[in-house]
Amino acid sequence: MSTHPLDPIFHPRAVALVGVPSSDNDMSRGFLTALLEQGYEQEHGLYPVNPKMTEVRGLRCYPTLLDTPDPVDHVISLVPARVAPELVEQCVQKGVRSIHFFTAGLAETGDPELIEVERRMIERLRDAGIRAIGPNCMGLYVPRSGLAFMGGFPTEPGNVMLISQSGANAGDIIHGLGRRGVRFSKAVSFGNGADVRAHDLFDYAASDPDTEIVTAYIEGAQDGRKMFEAVKRCAAVKPTIILKGGLTAAGARAANSHTGSLAGSVQIFEAMCRQAGAYRAETMDDLHDLVIGVATGARHIRGRGVALVGGGGGFAVLSADAIATAGLEVPPLPEASKARLREFIPLAGTSVNNPIDTNAGGPEGMLRTLGIVAEAAPIDVVITNPMLPRQPGAPGPGGPPPAAADELPPEEHDERMQRAADRASGQLAELQTETGVPFVALLRGREVEGDAADRFQQAATAAGIACYPTVHRAARTLAQLMVWRARREGLPALF
Amino acid sequence: MSTHPLDPIFHPRAVALVGVPSSDNDMSRGFLTALLEQGYEQEHGLYPVNPKMTEVRGLRCYPTLLDTPDPVDHVISLVPARVAPELVEQCVQKGVRSIHFFTAGLAETGDPELIEVERRMIERLRDAGIRAIGPNCMGLYVPRSGLAFMGGFPTEPGNVMLISQSGANAGDIIHGLGRRGVRFSKAVSFGNGADVRAHDLFDYAASDPDTEIVTAYIEGAQDGRKMFEAVKRCAAVKPTIILKGGLTAAGARAANSHTGSLAGSVQIFEAMCRQAGAYRAETMDDLHDLVIGVATGARHIRGRGVALVGGGGGFAVLSADAIATAGLEVPPLPEASKARLREFIPLAGTSVNNPIDTNAGGPEGMLRTLGIVAEAAPIDVVITNPMLPRQPGAPGPGGPPPAAADELPPEEHDERMQRAADRASGQLAELQTETGVPFVALLRGREVEGDAADRFQQAATAAGIACYPTVHRAARTLAQLMVWRARREGLPALF
Repeated sequence: MSTHPLDPIFHPRAVALVGVPSSDNDMSRGFLTALLEQGYEQEHGLYPVNPKMTEVRGLRCYPTLLDTPDPVDHVISLVPARVAPELVEQCVQKGVRSIHFFTAGLAETGDPELIEVERRMIERLRDAGIRAIGPNCMGLYVPRSGLAFMGGFPTEPGNVMLISQSGANAGDIIHGLGRRGVRFSKAVSFGNGADVRAHDLFDYAASDPDTEIVTAYIEGAQDGRKMFEAVKRCAAVKPTIILKGGLTAAGARAANSHTGSLAGSVQIFEAMCRQAGAYRAETMDDLHDLVIGVATGARHIRGRGVALVGGGGGFAVLSADAIATAGLEVPPLPEASKARLREFIPLAGTSVNNPIDTNAGGPEGMLRTLGIVAEAAPIDVVITNPMLPRQPGAPGPGGPPPAAADELPPEEHDERMQRAADRASGQLAELQTETGVPFVALLRGREVEGDAADRFQQAATAAGIACYPTVHRAARTLAQLMVWRARREGLPALF
Repeated sequence: MSTHPLDPIFHPRAVALVGVPSSDNDMSRGFLTALLEQGYEQEHGLYPVNPKMTEVRGLRCYPTLLDTPDPVDHVISLVPARVAPELVEQCVQKGVRSIHFFTAGLAETGDPELIEVERRMIERLRDAGIRAIGPNCMGLYVPRSGLAFMGGFPTEPGNVMLISQSGANAGDIIHGLGRRGVRFSKAVSFGNGADVRAHDLFDYAASDPDTEIVTAYIEGAQDGRKMFEAVKRCAAVKPTIILKGGLTAAGARAANSHTGSLAGSVQIFEAMCRQAGAYRAETMDDLHDLVIGVATGARHIRGRGVALVGGGGGFAVLSADAIATAGLEVPPLPEASKARLREFIPLAGTSVNNPIDTNAGGPEGMLRTLGIVAEAAPIDVVITNPMLPRQPGAPGPGGPPPAAADELPPEEHDERMQRAADRASGQLAELQTETGVPFVALLRGREVEGDAADRFQQAATAAGIACYPTVHRAARTLAQLMVWRARREGLPALF
């Protein structure tokens, strides 16, 4: 099997952190923290470099890159821009394979001299066969290799590749989707893109066997034609979701300050995505929600008929409004389905129209309800609340607060919450498989304990159940998935 | 001072809970829990009624309403619909002042017989001078009186009155806004509105000295002309925000199942709000966000020029897009302001254009930056992140995680978080007062510890600083406040 030319940068052995700060208060200290958190030094060499220290966080610290043990594959540059050219010379001398410049204050400033400094550094590296990430970026997150650029990233690898022109946005995506149970094959924050650019990364993603879903945050395409070709190759074979920053004049001006990007028009970008079969997310929330959509059974939605089960009368009214506003439908249930529901659902205070507002029959009744609803002909997807222990003081006139659980020792409490999350997501996954109709879970923040909510989201994603914080976001995502699939006509069916 | 005819129902002395369930698992047990949580029985009489029990939660339980000690002002009916008429007779005999029917399964079912049962009960009560809330609703939350209908409601009174045709939505609003620091004068979930209706409650709100802001969730106006007149009286003197459920055909159908409401057209409702000077919230999030807006200094926004300070480059790009999309502007700072900022902000990796992306100079530098930005001529409002201890693993390349704080004993940890929240909100409030420019705080969930975030939101609202979870929601709310104020031309200036 031939490997992609970029492959080696994702799987380095020894890494040197050059310019690791002596103070814990320095922002860039976070790189060391993140690598230690992933256990990098236990698997490979990890060499901090700073002439003012001999030791940092239990690791030996070297005066210069040239003093580190041979070989070093990857360098993370935390040095100021003015000394970066000297570090480049040392990289060439040391024979490293790749360098990531957290170092900023180069081409993105718009200063002609600094643009020239960056250009010459990249030329020097290229001549020596060294690939560069950045400058002005956070670099690499590759859980399989133990690489990370922020604390709190999941250590387990997954199937989503993230390509980002912004480090902060990459962090938001990894933390945010990580909390919802998504795991990553790799993420690259590439900043100014002086060497490795978006099109190289889409090209890589297309053939990376570890990557099944691709998502990206892009401010400006540096090379429009190559970018289009790479996105096309990628989106032909993998669901590809792209958020474009700098859509408005104000945003474009900010993008120019940020990465020196010329943002280009949203119409051109939208047209590129359409032709390529990729999907342009309109907002960061959309990006997150669409990744959840294609990573779960939600992607199999085949029509606009939504059933909403549970949540209370007024909630049902606003939810029906939200679903209809998103362009989906809330069809009445057929009489036969209603008759089956009325066998065990009393009349008062509940509705067996759609939305179905009932909690009759307890958990068993709920499962029975969900099954009957999913089997009804006009229903293409079921949105419902998972059956989780409720938070004390959660909406609803009462019911037993989980007081008993609160008195358990912490480990048992955790175990019990995990069991509840696994059971609730497992039940929905089973219904999804049995009926062939996607189930979508709602997780209204106030209703379940914070930690229980996260456990459920993660269990749900792992079980193939999409989970959204509001009906509005669930319906919007489902509608977008249908639009996207319709637009891909003529391309391979990916979902 | 003359009191409003509805006033007595908000200030009962003894309350009887008729039909309090014998099982903790019954939903309606929550009413007893909520009243005990507010300490109702310590201030007034609280009499559970159920012939099958002699004691419940430490309170004496009576066989019938007629067995309770004299006098009883307010009855909460948890009995099934079929025995409700008998309870009505007992209420007349006992001489109570008001009754709230949690009892459902009456007119909202659409069944002609049940509609007639409801009509006759209400007629009987009216003839006896007894006011009725409901049926099919959650009733009253009056923190000053110790009345509540769900657990977890704030015990302190405030200045917002909520009028809701849905109990679940009322719960969402009280919990959600309560968590953001809003406090309520009273809330009424009035369900079918057989006696007390929306127009009575708007009329009450207009003259209630405890109420400064009014918000409502309405499915259908039962008496369009009276409703319009009451909303007009109310909105003339107090900011009035109304969310209408049943905007779409699907929502209207759900509203009809829920409260038997005929939803009416959104155009008519919108026109009514405009003419009255009220504001129609489009979604539940909008309702929450607008209440925060009018409850804080955000209501004083005088123009469209937004400055965004902090958050990282890619975040700044998406934020500028969100602000511009909401119809506001992100004007470049004047050269003089930029020069003042450049005195202490280095060039690399930061921007003193607007958005201003810097954390130069630590907390002192941030305050200096905020002051300079607010004083710039084109700036009408400043959106920024509060200076709070960051969560471990929060976005940003690192910085010291609050490890030291985590090792403190819980009380000291709580105290420290509270101090941090008070300080951060106090600093913004001081800047707001000094510069005359509204400051709006962002609270991105992942960035600060859960509990610290809630403490900050509450401290901020109390200090008059609006706090929103995203730039999108902040900008949308500010734009709506400006539209609303422009539409109120000719009416008294309320904000």
